[in-house]
Amino acid sequence: MKSSVDLNCDMGEGFGHWVLGDAPDEELMKILSSANVATGFHAGDPNSMDRVVKLAKDYGVGLGAHPGYQDLRGFGRRFIQTPSDELINDIIYQVGALREFGRRHDVELQHVKPHGMLYMEAARNEELSTMLIDTLMKTCPDQMIFCMGISLTRKIALEKGYPSAREFYADRDYDDSGSIVFARKVGQLDPKTVADKCVRACIEGKVRTVEGNDIDIAFESICFHSDSPGALAMGQAIHDALKANGIQIAAPIPSAA
Amino acid sequence: MKSSVDLNCDMGEGFGHWVLGDAPDEELMKILSSANVATGFHAGDPNSMDRVVKLAKDYGVGLGAHPGYQDLRGFGRRFIQTPSDELINDIIYQVGALREFGRRHDVELQHVKPHGMLYMEAARNEELSTMLIDTLMKTCPDQMIFCMGISLTRKIALEKGYPSAREFYADRDYDDSGSIVFARKVGQLDPKTVADKCVRACIEGKVRTVEGNDIDIAFESICFHSDSPGALAMGQAIHDALKANGIQIAAPIPSAA
Amino acid sequence: MKSSVDLNCDMGEGFGHWVLGDAPDEELMKILSSANVATGFHAGDPNSMDRVVKLAKDYGVGLGAHPGYQDLRGFGRRFIQTPSDELINDIIYQVGALREFGRRHDVELQHVKPHGMLYMEAARNEELSTMLIDTLMKTCPDQMIFCMGISLTRKIALEKGYPSAREFYADRDYDDSGSIVFARKVGQLDPKTVADKCVRACIEGKVRTVEGNDIDIAFESICFHSDSPGALAMGQAIHDALKANGIQIAAPIPSAA
Amino acid sequence: MKSSVDLNCDMGEGFGHWVLGDAPDEELMKILSSANVATGFHAGDPNSMDRVVKLAKDYGVGLGAHPGYQDLRGFGRRFIQTPSDELINDIIYQVGALREFGRRHDVELQHVKPHGMLYMEAARNEELSTMLIDTLMKTCPDQMIFCMGISLTRKIALEKGYPSAREFYADRDYDDSGSIVFARKVGQLDPKTVADKCVRACIEGKVRTVEGNDIDIAFESICFHSDSPGALAMGQAIHDALKANGIQIAAPIPSAA
Repeated sequence: MKSSVDLNCDMGEGFGHWVLGDAPDEELMKILSSANVATGFHAGDPNSMDRVVKLAKDYGVGLGAHPGYQDLRGFGRRFIQTPSDELINDIIYQVGALREFGRRHDVELQHVKPHGMLYMEAARNEELSTMLIDTLMKTCPDQMIFCMGISLTRKIALEKGYPSAREFYADRDYDDSGSIVFARKVGQLDPKTVADKCVRACIEGKVRTVEGNDIDIAFESICFHSDSPGALAMGQAIHDALKANGIQIAAPIPSAA
Repeated sequence: MKSSVDLNCDMGEGFGHWVLGDAPDEELMKILSSANVATGFHAGDPNSMDRVVKLAKDYGVGLGAHPGYQDLRGFGRRFIQTPSDELINDIIYQVGALREFGRRHDVELQHVKPHGMLYMEAARNEELSTMLIDTLMKTCPDQMIFCMGISLTRKIALEKGYPSAREFYADRDYDDSGSIVFARKVGQLDPKTVADKCVRACIEGKVRTVEGNDIDIAFESICFHSDSPGALAMGQAIHDALKANGIQIAAPIPSAA
Repeated sequence: MKSSVDLNCDMGEGFGHWVLGDAPDEELMKILSSANVATGFHAGDPNSMDRVVKLAKDYGVGLGAHPGYQDLRGFGRRFIQTPSDELINDIIYQVGALREFGRRHDVELQHVKPHGMLYMEAARNEELSTMLIDTLMKTCPDQMIFCMGISLTRKIALEKGYPSAREFYADRDYDDSGSIVFARKVGQLDPKTVADKCVRACIEGKVRTVEGNDIDIAFESICFHSDSPGALAMGQAIHDALKANGIQIAAPIPSAA
Repeated sequence: MKSSVDLNCDMGEGFGHWVLGDAPDEELMKILSSANVATGFHAGDPNSMDRVVKLAKDYGVGLGAHPGYQDLRGFGRRFIQTPSDELINDIIYQVGALREFGRRHDVELQHVKPHGMLYMEAARNEELSTMLIDTLMKTCPDQMIFCMGISLTRKIALEKGYPSAREFYADRDYDDSGSIVFARKVGQLDPKTVADKCVRACIEGKVRTVEGNDIDIAFESICFHSDSPGALAMGQAIHDALKANGIQIAAPIPSAA
């Protein structure tokens, strides 16, 4: 039974003239404890980064870099065959870019969360996750990484002693293996159903799978997607239900076992 | 008469599979005291940045961020009508990206030098130079800016007390106003002529203009272009001539008057 | 008093994962006689082009290429200092790309309409408009160009005998000079007001300016913007009001005087 | 024993300010019968396309579109996980763009040759090659496709009756399976050795593999790479050796069996 949990969301995922989703950034900031800010490779641009970092500062939300594959057209959701050391360079580039906006607005970087296919690829690619954790131990000793509980990223972070926070996906389905069921397009979800699922996961540590079974789930942060239809209502429902159940919403305490 | 002067050069200005110029980066590093590293908007990519930052570390060369307009196709040499605050965001982004590679390789950032048209635009655009200096005072208090002696960038940096280093262009012509004569394509220059010009500028503080007159020239850093044909031979000639005349090549001491 | 007028709209102006505006493409197609399809430089990608060209075919809407500056981040609304011959190359490239989707779906290209700042720059840049008309006479002899009535583009097209159609902007204000008043952001307009303005322009050939005067306005096509808030309702109102006043909506008959 | 063979080369593979290889385009054109022109996705831009198409016209060289993955940074050599129908849209876009420059300069398109990883992916991906051939039968009925002899692209083209020309790679090694041995970086090859290999393949229909065996090789076109070091000398040697052996260099006659 958790007394506190992190609530995170991807933000600043427009580009230039384009916006993503219908949830106003400022309203989202009011309910989050962590924000993953798009850093220009899969979405986002220097203007959106400046704006979102300032909002994170104003609302006291933990600032996270959300680096992705350099693939605006594919929104970072396509696998691009790339040597691991080059992906690490891409991540360093993007993390540094965001950190500098933090310097401007007096916000420390809290975490790094790879985006989309880069998150999935790191989860299954031992070489990539090893290089990533080694790099973060050097460049981001005061931050942590967000990852899936059953990922190689998590496993290697634990082995090397780098702080990591596991995510629970509020608006994605799980299967019996504990993996997220991939969905190209997610329809509008009922906010109360999603909120109940989060509360149960926090209190009982269980989630119902698509196969209809209950499995154990361990996590330090709840993630929902700002581009899901009705994202703000869903996020608000999660926020309110957690509070109503006496669960605080606060920066994650990285786990070590 | 100078006892010491900085020698700087743009570096890492390829992109992906493409390289620029025929001068090997490592050979250039041996003769420079400062390197301006392309940060991905006009040229350069995370891989080239990592490589060049590491070289700067290995050779003890001062590390500079070289941000440009976001214009790979135009190599940052085209004016793009953009609000000043958005250009500042672009600069913050690029400086941060480079600084992070410095974190990786234990190199502090030494300076910022806008590239191409961004350098020229800042020189004549008071709003942009004001925002730039104000921003650097916040985000780069331990760095300095490289600029032209007769620019608004220099004037505003002095007024606000932000460290700046003026550049002398070894491979560009000057006119009587003290401005650089724009050239789209520069042919191969005689290394000895260029080196003599630099030595004279250091010793006498004079340069011969295209109109045939001598004008006073004040600077803390000598710049030559790595994509000029025969760049390495030219740089080597400058380096050797300075040494032969007892002038040390070392990081610039920012001027204040 | 017109018996027929063209009704055109920009379409396919998303990019990858991003969409623009809230008007469904298929609903727009039902009320238009011409569609300007974004060709990937300021917006649009091969997937959106394929989709919109197929829709144009299905609904019998005139197919137009809508080439812009290569500037996804600025949505083609920023001036980029570029030699005219290079801009012409960009236009040829984009027109050809769209025409090929027409080959796939058995649709002939009807017109070319430069986008945003390229449209405005051509209007005032004699060299660019001259090169553009000369090029289209060679590569697009069976098409026409859409332009402003008071532009150099129109003037040169007339002089050279290349077909052109003048546009009336339904959702932009005019000043006494006959120019459109630039607006970075347009709020939601009353559909009836816009429709009445269009009907009056068709019947009386007049428009009320921001200064409060009536000026003569000549045109063959009415343009509204698909990314204006409430664009579909506005377009539907224009469509219905024209029909109710006995004005057919059909491909433009290029004017010659 | 061939009396005639096509000689092709990739061209226009710079981007903006960057050039690729040291072989001057105009010199290459003098020895080729077919040119594959980069169409902006992996390399090339509208300016290079215009220039190279004009050269192809001037020298009577067959004009080929050389579409690739949209990946400037990876030069089209990285696999990007993309639905086949989207890759087809990318190909249509690029082919049309190049064809339009042909309209400008009165050159018909002769062939389509996918670039790099797109060529390799089509070779092994039945769905992609099927869609590609079906699409070309509609949009490019008067052209042909260049492909590997042992590819699915070739197999499907034959089955459907679409013209195809098989390539022999002058500057790549073969293995016993008849496949090209992948090499990230190719060193400078001896022009005479390469030329002898081409002549033997034309006369005897044989090539020596890396395993040391002779295998049969059937082809209608010889390809060499313009970015190989010493490409012009190599191409010239191939050209001269073919001529000296009485083999004409001319546009390929697509094979059907």
